[in-house]
Amino acid sequence: MAHPIAAQLKVLAFDVFGTVVDWYGSVTREVEALRLGVDAGAFVSEWRAGYYASMARVRKGELAWARIDDLHRAELDRLLDKFGAARLDEAARQQLNLAWHRLDPWPDTVTGLSRLKSRFTICTLSNGNLGLLANMAKRAGLPWDLILSAEVFGAFKPDPKAYLGVADVFSLKPEETMLVATHKADLRGALRCGLATAYVERPLEEGPGVQREESRDPAFTLHATHFNDLADQLGCP
Amino acid sequence: MAHPIAAQLKVLAFDVFGTVVDWYGSVTREVEALRLGVDAGAFVSEWRAGYYASMARVRKGELAWARIDDLHRAELDRLLDKFGAARLDEAARQQLNLAWHRLDPWPDTVTGLSRLKSRFTICTLSNGNLGLLANMAKRAGLPWDLILSAEVFGAFKPDPKAYLGVADVFSLKPEETMLVATHKADLRGALRCGLATAYVERPLEEGPGVQREESRDPAFTLHATHFNDLADQLGCP
Repeated sequence: MAHPIAAQLKVLAFDVFGTVVDWYGSVTREVEALRLGVDAGAFVSEWRAGYYASMARVRKGELAWARIDDLHRAELDRLLDKFGAARLDEAARQQLNLAWHRLDPWPDTVTGLSRLKSRFTICTLSNGNLGLLANMAKRAGLPWDLILSAEVFGAFKPDPKAYLGVADVFSLKPEETMLVATHKADLRGALRCGLATAYVERPLEEGPGVQREESRDPAFTLHATHFNDLADQLGCP
Repeated sequence: MAHPIAAQLKVLAFDVFGTVVDWYGSVTREVEALRLGVDAGAFVSEWRAGYYASMARVRKGELAWARIDDLHRAELDRLLDKFGAARLDEAARQQLNLAWHRLDPWPDTVTGLSRLKSRFTICTLSNGNLGLLANMAKRAGLPWDLILSAEVFGAFKPDPKAYLGVADVFSLKPEETMLVATHKADLRGALRCGLATAYVERPLEEGPGVQREESRDPAFTLHATHFNDLADQLGCP
């Protein structure tokens, strides 16, 4: 029995980092493999935090518009210094920065997306850049109907331009579009723009050492434990 | 034996209307089904010509930037008047305008693209808007790694911004990217930007009554009779 929201939805837009793919596990494995003598988990957590901080500076106008690839790279150089691994050469830095293009999906991601795609149009709505998202999808077999990015709208989430941009691309009303994410701030941004919202639990997003707060928030339309649960709730075969 | 260009290529960018899908046949069938009493082939040929003329006016700055959906719609209203079919109501006009989202692929399109995708990243580079291209791909099963459009670059082909934009999205050099198209003006635009080029024959693009000039032009890197021929030339399994 599908949730009544299913009848009005046309497009599901997915946050990507954390929601669709496991950035912590994937990048940590790449850092460990380099044997830099750093605490790989701490390094990656700080890299991710630096990305959020850089985006916030872009949104405030303190930094010029930049792709996530470039923000990741600036943070990487800073962290290699800080963690005492500045000996890593340029070619290796370029390779490591592309670890964010090689993120592994969660176990339920591909089957869940394929089920959701059978009933809805599924797209990304990520702050990641288009090239990163396309490379990731090709490697991981993510069956997107369309890859949308902050790069298309010139605005990082939670800027309303990003959420309203998805509906506009498909000539839909906001309420015909649902944001799917494991980040409540992202979902609140979508909610303010009139989109439907689905929270998905990703208890391991920040690594096994971090207890995430995954409680149900009645403000969001749906709460799912994983993508196959979401597909069940939306009546997908 | 693959052509030597295959070794340097990473991304194949495809023109869509005419190259990937049969706009003449697909839209003509929809116009005929409406029994408007018009010469459907002539109507569709003029609709397509009007789209080119509207884009040219946008490129010259005579018209504000607009999506192809909107340019198609303005032309449709003009042509319904001209062909004496102005009785078509608003809902039917909206439906007919979306015929451009429902274009059928050529017989070799899906198998050829799937083979090319096994070795290269395949994307669109179309003047069509993102929503149109996504709806078309979902319906026709076009296995794009990424959908790129004039809408992303704010510039219609043959503006250099569109061709260079593809390389830039993937952080590649122009010569690592190839434009595949059945339109020589489009390929010349890509050539001027340093992209590799492949002409694909589509003798029926403008309908069975129009003899297209499909001669080999030595300025282009490759000349293929269809997508499977292109896959053969590029060494795809």
